[in-house]
Amino acid sequence: MRQPIDRTHDRHLRSCVESANQPDTDFPIQNLPLGVFRHLDLSPRIGVAIGESILDLTQCHETGLLSGLPTNLAQACTNTNLNALMGLGNQASILLRHRVSELLKHQPHTSSPAAECLWAKADVELLLPATIGDYTDFYASIFHATHVGQLFRPDQPLLPNYKHIPIAYHGRASSIVPSGTHIQRPWGQCKPPNQPLPSFTATQQLDYELEVGCFVGVGNELGQPVSIDFAPDYLFGICLVNDWSARDIQAWEYQPLGPFLGKSFTTTISPWVVTMGAIAPFYTKAFSRPEGDPSPLPYLDSATDIQSGGINLIVTASLQSAQMRAQGIPPIQLSQGSFQQMYWTLAQMLTHHTSNGCNLRSGDLLASGTISGAEDGSLGCLLEQTKRGANPITLPTGEIRSFLADGDEVILHGYCEAEGYNRIGLGECRGIVVRERKEK
Amino acid sequence: MRQPIDRTHDRHLRSCVESANQPDTDFPIQNLPLGVFRHLDLSPRIGVAIGESILDLTQCHETGLLSGLPTNLAQACTNTNLNALMGLGNQASILLRHRVSELLKHQPHTSSPAAECLWAKADVELLLPATIGDYTDFYASIFHATHVGQLFRPDQPLLPNYKHIPIAYHGRASSIVPSGTHIQRPWGQCKPPNQPLPSFTATQQLDYELEVGCFVGVGNELGQPVSIDFAPDYLFGICLVNDWSARDIQAWEYQPLGPFLGKSFTTTISPWVVTMGAIAPFYTKAFSRPEGDPSPLPYLDSATDIQSGGINLIVTASLQSAQMRAQGIPPIQLSQGSFQQMYWTLAQMLTHHTSNGCNLRSGDLLASGTISGAEDGSLGCLLEQTKRGANPITLPTGEIRSFLADGDEVILHGYCEAEGYNRIGLGECRGIVVRERKEK
Repeated sequence: MRQPIDRTHDRHLRSCVESANQPDTDFPIQNLPLGVFRHLDLSPRIGVAIGESILDLTQCHETGLLSGLPTNLAQACTNTNLNALMGLGNQASILLRHRVSELLKHQPHTSSPAAECLWAKADVELLLPATIGDYTDFYASIFHATHVGQLFRPDQPLLPNYKHIPIAYHGRASSIVPSGTHIQRPWGQCKPPNQPLPSFTATQQLDYELEVGCFVGVGNELGQPVSIDFAPDYLFGICLVNDWSARDIQAWEYQPLGPFLGKSFTTTISPWVVTMGAIAPFYTKAFSRPEGDPSPLPYLDSATDIQSGGINLIVTASLQSAQMRAQGIPPIQLSQGSFQQMYWTLAQMLTHHTSNGCNLRSGDLLASGTISGAEDGSLGCLLEQTKRGANPITLPTGEIRSFLADGDEVILHGYCEAEGYNRIGLGECRGIVVRERKEK
Repeated sequence: MRQPIDRTHDRHLRSCVESANQPDTDFPIQNLPLGVFRHLDLSPRIGVAIGESILDLTQCHETGLLSGLPTNLAQACTNTNLNALMGLGNQASILLRHRVSELLKHQPHTSSPAAECLWAKADVELLLPATIGDYTDFYASIFHATHVGQLFRPDQPLLPNYKHIPIAYHGRASSIVPSGTHIQRPWGQCKPPNQPLPSFTATQQLDYELEVGCFVGVGNELGQPVSIDFAPDYLFGICLVNDWSARDIQAWEYQPLGPFLGKSFTTTISPWVVTMGAIAPFYTKAFSRPEGDPSPLPYLDSATDIQSGGINLIVTASLQSAQMRAQGIPPIQLSQGSFQQMYWTLAQMLTHHTSNGCNLRSGDLLASGTISGAEDGSLGCLLEQTKRGANPITLPTGEIRSFLADGDEVILHGYCEAEGYNRIGLGECRGIVVRERKEK
């Protein structure tokens, strides 16, 4: 079920697009992530990121460069979002990957036919890659769950269900935005412990959450669960997710039905979907459950998944305040986490999600939950880093942060790496906090 | 902001469709709810329920019966779902209502031009009325919240936030189905209190929830809250919702992020959307908060809403087991509730939902949560009625029910009534529970 490692992953492959051959690029020819872009008033189009350029698949189709591919695949490449392409499954995605790799590879003494179909990334706008029908947010880092639990329930940080269930909640699909969209500080009901009654105010505890998202490829019918061994066939590709959170709104509202307005004001995703085909070399063993932890129930237990359900994927979050920007001080890194350290794999999340018969549709987004590790420096949100404001962070300008201030920009990055392969990146997921509305 | 009462509400109006003039019909000419139907392999079409018939708006458009209406309105009537029509707002909806009322009214000595555009309801399939982008489920009955709280937290049945916040969670949009769809008993992780570890099994505590849903009409932009006085402009129409729930799955999974797989396996809605224009005569004062309860915060407080934010709407839930069906025993009523008794109004729900800037889109569904009253006979789910199985119900056949058994059908009904006006109904919302999958 895992995608094969093949010639498209060869580290010696070079691209005809020179910026894709730079060692620090997120988008070498081994990556080839899919996204949707728009140039001025053209309709949105599907593209492939290659270095600082974008290969326009509609134009490729029109100039015959996709000929020979199955008709439904070539047709899906000309849509205004990735949903249909996602729905064709990973075999189709790999066929496309092979063709695009051919089109973009460096060929000595000859110019690539794809040269005519390239846009400069700087000249286009990047949109959401898919129409996201439903968005589900998991809670798959046991380190994050434990740290947050310690703040709210010191006597019982980790609830009894955690090691048995990939805990998740339904998120809000309508307010998912692409990287770069400004984040308006939300208002909401908050009730600080020292006040007898709640008030309606701008959040004072705006936070980010460093997560990875996975898009559903082929969907399943209502009433048809997906078994753990087939789950990889339903996973299309990954991106970065910033699940912005207003901790004061969340704390007051979340009992008994879970997070709602504390999260639903905006969720940012990186615009490029790194396909499971691209990730093939970076599969690794899943997180090793500590001695004494229960085994997953059989429906979540798979030798293959234990062996290769993890992904060698490093993610980071950085912050740049308005003052840092004005003084030319680069962003400082707040945390670095390892996706391999998640207690639950993507396959387990998907299988659990469908285990009651719930149908997933192509383009649905499953997010991992905050990616944290055990140590300082690996904590994926400010709530954890500052212990809910008790230990504020000092920025290079001397500014203090318990939570995010207006003008702060949070930037997420992520990359897969493995011995013998070119590093591939997820691009970036960024957003600047802008001040609350003036009138209410 | 409330829709006006006008000649379309006149109780003396009669329809050219004779079945619409019967005293027990849900769909007299004063109702005119909108829905989507399909005849054999025709594309889905928008229709209006009138007695036992459906007026086909595409055919009306093609035969010129919508001429003179604004072009975008007439065009939206020919779509395959109601989303665009919903997005045009309530003024457009009322224009359409007036035209349809004219087309369907009884005219002595002349046959209605609309007679050519009618289908027998029995000959078509009723579909979901809209593409539901996001589904939000509230918890707006203080009686329900208190009764459920008593079962789980006898010392603190009602949490401190309840009287301040219209509590809600994000539901699953993909698994919403129209009335009549079978409900497959879900599997999931359950951990009865007397077992040390969870197991994966078919739910033994399948329940229904009697709710009312409201479709969003005009949407709001991300970052643009809707104030309480304008909220009615964003409400398009209502339907019945059965938020099927697996109580054992829910109990084990819901901490700390709320209900997930215990709810997401299926949600059933009635297929006809009763528009706010039709409801105009049935607005009434909102629920009177008991002496001593806090006032809503200013953003949820509106004199107009207190005066006319309630709806005179009665809802019922009935049950017929397979054995009752086989013996010809009609369904027995399990509960009857009053929507006017909800602690929060629809306008408060919508305003709260957008108060953090969250965008609602045309066709989004807001459900009320279980509609229960204070007394026995008004409890909107089996969890409350049987006190989580402690007081089972005996059916006319002698069968016992703590929760739903395979073969049970749950049927929801609802109707608006007010002195001086014809009663209008919401149609029905039904589903039969079918047994779990055999192999896992």
